[in-house]
Amino acid sequence: MAKIVVALGGNALGSTPQEQKDAVAFTAESIVSLVEEGHEIILGHGNGPQVGMINLAFESSASNGEGTPEMPFPECGAMSQGYIGYHLQNAIQKKLAARGIEKSAATVITQVLVSEEDEAFQKPTKPVGSFYSKKEADKLEQEKGYNMIEDAGRGYRRVVPSPIPLDIVEKKLIKKLVDDGDIVIACGGGGIPVIRKNGGFEGVPAVIDKDFACETLAELVEADVFLILTAVDKVAINFGTDEEEWLSELDLETAKKYCQEGHFAAGSMLPKVRAAMNFVEETGGRALITSLEKAAQALAGKDGTVIKK
Amino acid sequence: MAKIVVALGGNALGSTPQEQKDAVAFTAESIVSLVEEGHEIILGHGNGPQVGMINLAFESSASNGEGTPEMPFPECGAMSQGYIGYHLQNAIQKKLAARGIEKSAATVITQVLVSEEDEAFQKPTKPVGSFYSKKEADKLEQEKGYNMIEDAGRGYRRVVPSPIPLDIVEKKLIKKLVDDGDIVIACGGGGIPVIRKNGGFEGVPAVIDKDFACETLAELVEADVFLILTAVDKVAINFGTDEEEWLSELDLETAKKYCQEGHFAAGSMLPKVRAAMNFVEETGGRALITSLEKAAQALAGKDGTVIKK
Repeated sequence: MAKIVVALGGNALGSTPQEQKDAVAFTAESIVSLVEEGHEIILGHGNGPQVGMINLAFESSASNGEGTPEMPFPECGAMSQGYIGYHLQNAIQKKLAARGIEKSAATVITQVLVSEEDEAFQKPTKPVGSFYSKKEADKLEQEKGYNMIEDAGRGYRRVVPSPIPLDIVEKKLIKKLVDDGDIVIACGGGGIPVIRKNGGFEGVPAVIDKDFACETLAELVEADVFLILTAVDKVAINFGTDEEEWLSELDLETAKKYCQEGHFAAGSMLPKVRAAMNFVEETGGRALITSLEKAAQALAGKDGTVIKK
Repeated sequence: MAKIVVALGGNALGSTPQEQKDAVAFTAESIVSLVEEGHEIILGHGNGPQVGMINLAFESSASNGEGTPEMPFPECGAMSQGYIGYHLQNAIQKKLAARGIEKSAATVITQVLVSEEDEAFQKPTKPVGSFYSKKEADKLEQEKGYNMIEDAGRGYRRVVPSPIPLDIVEKKLIKKLVDDGDIVIACGGGGIPVIRKNGGFEGVPAVIDKDFACETLAELVEADVFLILTAVDKVAINFGTDEEEWLSELDLETAKKYCQEGHFAAGSMLPKVRAAMNFVEETGGRALITSLEKAAQALAGKDGTVIKK
């Protein structure tokens, strides 16, 4: 039996409410299998497509003159936590009932602390929201102070910083619930990014990488295992080439070398490997990268990639 | 020291993110004063203006051809719980820190069970979302099966049922947190309405009155006090007439009589009085109706309207 923080990708959740319902049914099946084996689960998840959709709906509606207000990015993130969390807890509750497991599952709205001094704020890199023409982009830069970049020939987009998570504001409450046997959904979309201000926390337009946020959570709740779920069963080097090699194990030193050699794509496998490395380095615990389908086998040491000292 | 479920109106939360931030700062001050006096607090809240705004943004964006999906009403409600809950917990955390109180505060996404057999489903009455022309309304009735009504000369609107809450899906987890001293925000907007289906719960387009939902929660968590906050300090009879009388006490029998005599406005004071009556009848506990400003004094028996046997 282990306490496990699971990080689930936002791309796996589909791009409509119905797609998301179908996706979470599948996710819930695997998660509840882990619960049935006696594990304690905290489930974190991405929100890239979902928060983009919410942001776009509000931008479109406001420009449409509907009288809806502009919705700041942290608030869009909070909405995405409610939206995704509702579907996840609903699906997990159903699978728990089907297997006769009397446990609660619920979503805790989560804020994640970042530093105003984080250098990411000097260099925003994470594209969010709609595509604009050059002219519109210039106007947004002037009027709202947005940072706009040309995104892969598809138009101009706003970019926000992607700072490093330092703390989870709701960590005590989350830890208490999971230690008591409840299944907690937390840190959705990497959490609502907040900085310390005026004796409290204030939301900032930024996106925290969900793998790093979940890793921070895994440390703070003293998880035994940090399980990162992705589209592939294992981590590969020389991915997509003739020398492609799928890895069952990866020690910290070798992982560092592979990162430096550029084996892992930025914004995709690289943050997962780095987050896994952080967890192992900081806690001595076990970090696994695998697919949802292979999660149970990876925990049993029979599949996936384990990152270790 | 008492365990208190507080029901806060959605109209008190403003209609933009900034208005809401200002409003919750004020709310948090009163709530944390109650905490400082040793009370355990569960905070429920309305979401009328907020879920309307979210619904409208998605309707507008979809009709604008932005590629965003249609967002069902339960999912809009889940988003509103994240949006409002984030602001509330953030503001409460700040006030707790300012007073040196080491307690956690967080929002739990909450589903509320209703019955498919509830007669409200035969007679939808609660207007939600945008205003439409007669022609658009007819089209929506045909294409989507919506129920549309003419709303006070302002155009046609969709109406959804307002069924009676039967159970709170996440009650155990919520009760555990509050019994452990945490401040819990739950049942936002009356909860996400769900019916039992296929061995689980399924969201339905409906709006549960937040006063009734909070009353159900108050029963289930075994609250001592059910505190309904509204725009006035006390309940009045003959409101707005020369015979206007503000009530300090109201026993069940008299309350019933006043309800029948039509002293209380439907959709406004009537559900509050009825929810308070339910709580007193079912639990023998104390129900109070007052303003945010007078909450502490009402608890001390010095202001507000107390509903009792």
